[in-house]
Amino acid sequence: MKKLINNPENVVEEMLDGLTLAYPEYLRKLDGFHVLVRKSSPISGKVALVSGGGSGHEPAHGGYVGKGMLDGAVAGDVFTSPTPDPIYEAVKAVDGGAGVLLIVKNYTGDVMNFEMAKDMAEMEGINIDYVIVNDDVAVENSTFTAGRRGIAGTVFVHKIAGAKAELGANLMEVKETAQKVIENVRSMGMALTSCIVPAAGKPNFTLEENEMEIGMGIHGEPGTHKENIQTANEVAEQLVNKILEDMCLNKGVEVAVMINGLASTPLMELYIVNKRVNEILTEKGIKIYRTFVGEFMTSLEMAGCSVSILKLDDELKDLLDESADTPAFKV
Amino acid sequence: MKKLINNPENVVEEMLDGLTLAYPEYLRKLDGFHVLVRKSSPISGKVALVSGGGSGHEPAHGGYVGKGMLDGAVAGDVFTSPTPDPIYEAVKAVDGGAGVLLIVKNYTGDVMNFEMAKDMAEMEGINIDYVIVNDDVAVENSTFTAGRRGIAGTVFVHKIAGAKAELGANLMEVKETAQKVIENVRSMGMALTSCIVPAAGKPNFTLEENEMEIGMGIHGEPGTHKENIQTANEVAEQLVNKILEDMCLNKGVEVAVMINGLASTPLMELYIVNKRVNEILTEKGIKIYRTFVGEFMTSLEMAGCSVSILKLDDELKDLLDESADTPAFKV
Repeated sequence: MKKLINNPENVVEEMLDGLTLAYPEYLRKLDGFHVLVRKSSPISGKVALVSGGGSGHEPAHGGYVGKGMLDGAVAGDVFTSPTPDPIYEAVKAVDGGAGVLLIVKNYTGDVMNFEMAKDMAEMEGINIDYVIVNDDVAVENSTFTAGRRGIAGTVFVHKIAGAKAELGANLMEVKETAQKVIENVRSMGMALTSCIVPAAGKPNFTLEENEMEIGMGIHGEPGTHKENIQTANEVAEQLVNKILEDMCLNKGVEVAVMINGLASTPLMELYIVNKRVNEILTEKGIKIYRTFVGEFMTSLEMAGCSVSILKLDDELKDLLDESADTPAFKV
Repeated sequence: MKKLINNPENVVEEMLDGLTLAYPEYLRKLDGFHVLVRKSSPISGKVALVSGGGSGHEPAHGGYVGKGMLDGAVAGDVFTSPTPDPIYEAVKAVDGGAGVLLIVKNYTGDVMNFEMAKDMAEMEGINIDYVIVNDDVAVENSTFTAGRRGIAGTVFVHKIAGAKAELGANLMEVKETAQKVIENVRSMGMALTSCIVPAAGKPNFTLEENEMEIGMGIHGEPGTHKENIQTANEVAEQLVNKILEDMCLNKGVEVAVMINGLASTPLMELYIVNKRVNEILTEKGIKIYRTFVGEFMTSLEMAGCSVSILKLDDELKDLLDESADTPAFKV
């Protein structure tokens, strides 16, 4: 296990400390909890956004805490949902009186724990609601999921719902916008290599030296199939075609594209994938309004990538263009 | 070789195309050359900055082309200096009459080729000068270098000299600022795994399963020593202590810190390294003004990291805080 860590049991705590020490102008950590909130939280009168989930997907979600995106992020153990208590603590720390929206990726543990935290907050009289992101078109139901998994498309929800909240919308309006993003975003990923959960110390699945898996989840959940490694172009085509089968994109429609690296795949390769994704969409008459290439929702040290496509309208375009200032995402 | 590429011979061309297609609002590619320039180049009356070098270090340098940083970036083949011709083409494309500063990492090939391009430009009457970045304290002289190597500290030169140029300084002033950054920045790296140059198809050096190399260069050039993998804290201590031996940092001095991932090392681990780097500097009474954690100067898919420390004064702090808007670096 070649990792730059100290004690496998402390990776989440130390990671959150290191992130907070790097960006104290944005973040503070709640004492005794694996929760990061904006330094300025709570912000009076603004709807607050809280997301989170298992760790190992950095910069998600702590890196997205800041102006124009999240107010709080809750980190579970590696690939493990946070329990309701820290989520509830995050909600209390960020609520500025206008209510809180929880943005939850669709994994059974996350959904259950965020719902319980919502119930706890409601009992304290906090105005709170939630949305569930399920952008991964690869498979219906999966190892940790009923329905589709939530992956990198979640970052578009953070960005766009975050902008809506920053502009002063109320909780129902922010939720509606988040829901609109969820209805319009689709993603699909693939993996070239496995990853090692620090506490386990061994790979959590295996791929042969010449093998890749299409549709792989961000915790190594099975995808649609394994096959011999193909070219970047063929990978891009498989991912985009599967996404487009699930979306109604007429000629002339505008989209945002995210090419997301799972960690070990270098930017060079992500740019090469983007070239083909761009060509495919352009050939179909789909207009690319904005592209984001980088590491947005990772899987420890897994090699591979995902492609996300978000169908835009004027509201979503405007909100996507609004400024965002967080450690890991700036517009 | 588990890579998302098509033909190994075309990785640079396709990478540049994919980058330009992702960020057309920032970049355009010069026809027939592996050169990216700002979409708005040349900018009349502004000193233009050009950098570049071998590919495989993305987002360096094309990702740093934009307002407040570079005007042009020249990409050689993987780990291979660009020839003088494309550098000269970049210079001609970005010169807005106020002259051009070349920012060169200290590798023998880069220095020779950028100097030749400078001579070509001077013969055409272009006001041009250059600086050489040699921030890597690991070793004197190396596989491809007379003197010290230039690594991630180069990004601070792009940022700060870029801000100076954007504010309207003349060529001599921009060069002086760049030189001041170079004199005040020190870096050191380490690797956990090797990397594969696509055209070679096999690792360009080897590390055993339990081995790491301290002081490793960004092309796999030898460092100071190999040893069994240590904890993140011990790695941070080795890197920082070696850097501090080479700098005069009195109590109360302010610094900027960059924790740079070489590619396969996830952000989680970089944050953990940052925690210890921050503690060491704080214990010594050194004030951390700003920290940057991410992938700024990579080495294909190598695992490992580097630490850079930049000693600041009021001018450097102000210039570091100036806005920058590029695909890979925003302030």
